[in-house]
Amino acid sequence: MRFSRYFLTTLKEVPQEAHLVSHQLMLRCCMIHQVAAGLYAWAPLGLKVLQKIEAIIREEHAAIDALEVHMPTIQPAALWKESGRYEDYGKELLRFKDRHEVELLYGPTCEEIFTQFFKTHIKSYKDLPQRLYQIQLKFRDEIRPRFGVMRGREFLMKDLYSFDLNKAASLQSYEAVLGAYYKIFERMNLKALAVRADTGPIGGDLSHEFIVLAPSGESTLLYDATFKPGTPLTLDDIHNVYAVTDDQHNPETCPLKADQLKTSKGIEVGHVFYFGTKYSAPLGASVMDDKGELTPVHMGSYGIGVSRVLAALIEIFSDEKGMVWPQSVAPFDVGLVNLKIGDEACTAMADALYTNLKAAGIDVLYDDRDRPAGFKLNDMDLVGLPYQIILGPKNAAKGHVELKERATGKLICLSQEALMAKISATDGLAKLSSLFDAAQCA
Amino acid sequence: MRFSRYFLTTLKEVPQEAHLVSHQLMLRCCMIHQVAAGLYAWAPLGLKVLQKIEAIIREEHAAIDALEVHMPTIQPAALWKESGRYEDYGKELLRFKDRHEVELLYGPTCEEIFTQFFKTHIKSYKDLPQRLYQIQLKFRDEIRPRFGVMRGREFLMKDLYSFDLNKAASLQSYEAVLGAYYKIFERMNLKALAVRADTGPIGGDLSHEFIVLAPSGESTLLYDATFKPGTPLTLDDIHNVYAVTDDQHNPETCPLKADQLKTSKGIEVGHVFYFGTKYSAPLGASVMDDKGELTPVHMGSYGIGVSRVLAALIEIFSDEKGMVWPQSVAPFDVGLVNLKIGDEACTAMADALYTNLKAAGIDVLYDDRDRPAGFKLNDMDLVGLPYQIILGPKNAAKGHVELKERATGKLICLSQEALMAKISATDGLAKLSSLFDAAQCA
Repeated sequence: MRFSRYFLTTLKEVPQEAHLVSHQLMLRCCMIHQVAAGLYAWAPLGLKVLQKIEAIIREEHAAIDALEVHMPTIQPAALWKESGRYEDYGKELLRFKDRHEVELLYGPTCEEIFTQFFKTHIKSYKDLPQRLYQIQLKFRDEIRPRFGVMRGREFLMKDLYSFDLNKAASLQSYEAVLGAYYKIFERMNLKALAVRADTGPIGGDLSHEFIVLAPSGESTLLYDATFKPGTPLTLDDIHNVYAVTDDQHNPETCPLKADQLKTSKGIEVGHVFYFGTKYSAPLGASVMDDKGELTPVHMGSYGIGVSRVLAALIEIFSDEKGMVWPQSVAPFDVGLVNLKIGDEACTAMADALYTNLKAAGIDVLYDDRDRPAGFKLNDMDLVGLPYQIILGPKNAAKGHVELKERATGKLICLSQEALMAKISATDGLAKLSSLFDAAQCA
Repeated sequence: MRFSRYFLTTLKEVPQEAHLVSHQLMLRCCMIHQVAAGLYAWAPLGLKVLQKIEAIIREEHAAIDALEVHMPTIQPAALWKESGRYEDYGKELLRFKDRHEVELLYGPTCEEIFTQFFKTHIKSYKDLPQRLYQIQLKFRDEIRPRFGVMRGREFLMKDLYSFDLNKAASLQSYEAVLGAYYKIFERMNLKALAVRADTGPIGGDLSHEFIVLAPSGESTLLYDATFKPGTPLTLDDIHNVYAVTDDQHNPETCPLKADQLKTSKGIEVGHVFYFGTKYSAPLGASVMDDKGELTPVHMGSYGIGVSRVLAALIEIFSDEKGMVWPQSVAPFDVGLVNLKIGDEACTAMADALYTNLKAAGIDVLYDDRDRPAGFKLNDMDLVGLPYQIILGPKNAAKGHVELKERATGKLICLSQEALMAKISATDGLAKLSSLFDAAQCA
């Protein structure tokens, strides 16, 4: 993609209304655009990252045999009255009426609608387990939307619902999803902790929040100081490792002494629940068991805040110059900066490199704008792609380019051929990092 | 995908509430699930086709340098008051208030919000043209939702907005999108006609509907009998070929005689508009032109009803046995039917074929259910994948399979090796059709 043709206007100044680094950088890089309080548009750069996160989520959900579906955002209130949540949910539930005065709502979560969908189609224990998920918009009418997409009103969520014959089977689903979640966060370089948490308006017996450590996080958690965040745990392990949100911590009953505990701030990026028959019983979602008897299914629900994950990534992977994307979710693989558009040889070489990189299957953001070199280098640091290929007239004359690793700031000089030899359609940029063991450019 | 693990319950009976073939078949194949009037859930099979349609749309939009964005479904009413549409739009516009009594609406179309987004970021004619699109949910509170997803209330739409310096440039964008639309429909084997149409609540000077011919369509169109539907036309051609919806037809002024006209029913699958400065002027979306003067941009908007396209495909590509998907949008590439689960050799061979096909990059729906052969063959015809590989004990003993082309019903018998030799990761199933020139199975 040529920068000059991309919808990407950068801001040098930090927008005053934004307090979180992620919110500031997303505005400075034109990733999001505020439409109204808590309502955001996703500009091309932001949407591209969002779609990469979605792709990782889809792959890891397919790996646990979860099937993707798509529910309407608008749900009938009648269904929530059956489950008993319509009155309980509070003002975060956006309620309204259609032209025929039928009561509707914008789903903040989808237990009822998935339960209804399941019960219409699945009648026998032989068709269990079922794991159904969607990546779909939710609306929660936050009293004070803030922090950009970290706490917006309309947001993108991945929500999965599991349906099993009994509690033991349901906990197997719970465990499978836990495993998928660790993999999802690991693939994005996020060190997540699953901590015991309150079940809130979803309800149920068992619940864990997935929290990634970040000083700016709204959650406070306490955990065994010997535990290493990011370590995947099974359900058994989770019960054994002490890790809780502060509202679940009681110094009286905590098995660890104060000096064995670590307190950290974190961002909640996922939440999993086992709630048995809380929804299947009132909504009549039962299957025939192996004795021919109708039994309500045991359910769990499992959410990842997709748009919030993106903000969390920026909170964790950024520095004073801008974002520093992990490769797996970077909006482009590499940035190509032509430092001098007016120089014919330089521009010809940059154009050729752009063509060759694209031919090798590399997704390139090519800064071909007629702007000062420093301005363009700052913009490329701000956007934070893993690698930058920088080309100026002097190096171009020698057939050389500079290659910069954004995370470390390391810069090397090498021939165009040497660069392309390390980039291939099969391996992508995987071999580039080895180049930084070579000598520095003179 | 194993049928036994897929969320796909088929119905033999035609659901009474469904009048259109597409609605009937989508319910019979568990592609959709009705949540409430005009509100549908997409089950795995339906969503898979929807995502294939989306992928084609994305590719053809990238080819005309359109960039994908994502607007919130909920918009502030204030913005629609600025454009003057808030009162005009009528009861199809779902209006409501949030917890702070702020007036909101669920977007039925997004001219205002895209104009606002554009004007915040683009200030110079040098950054034009801009072509921005999204694939996003819309809500239109139809007084009488009907025909399944053909006329639902919440539906998936691709909507693009073009921003140009003047009318001539804007018509170039109009023409580019026309070209993309012809390609999109052609790739799905749909023969679309662009006909002059009323501009309705979008407004403007110039508008065309894309209509695919189908006897069950709600639109009536009249066109030059010598014209062949599906032929791509440029903007100039379109002006010269007589093709209109019936409300635009006036026998008095029509240049053709009645016997030179053909009247057909069709389904509207797309609609394109050029409306100049209708939104940019009131909302203040101006850019600096090459003389340094502020000038309101010229705009167009262009929609494809993504969920409706899926229904239209079924209206056109189905027979008395079920759906007959074009390859490009088929939910799976091929169906594999094991006629006798109890037969060990047959099941071993079917399992191996399933593994080999997947390894060749073929997306297979493998019917491994313990059900009668006829039941499974009917289900596979109903689902309508382009090819079926059918395996029974007699053929299995000889290492043979039957290959069926769904569209023609042709059936041939060949060795497993001969079949796999025609299937490859690079060509997929492209070579399979040539097999049907061979002799019939004895």
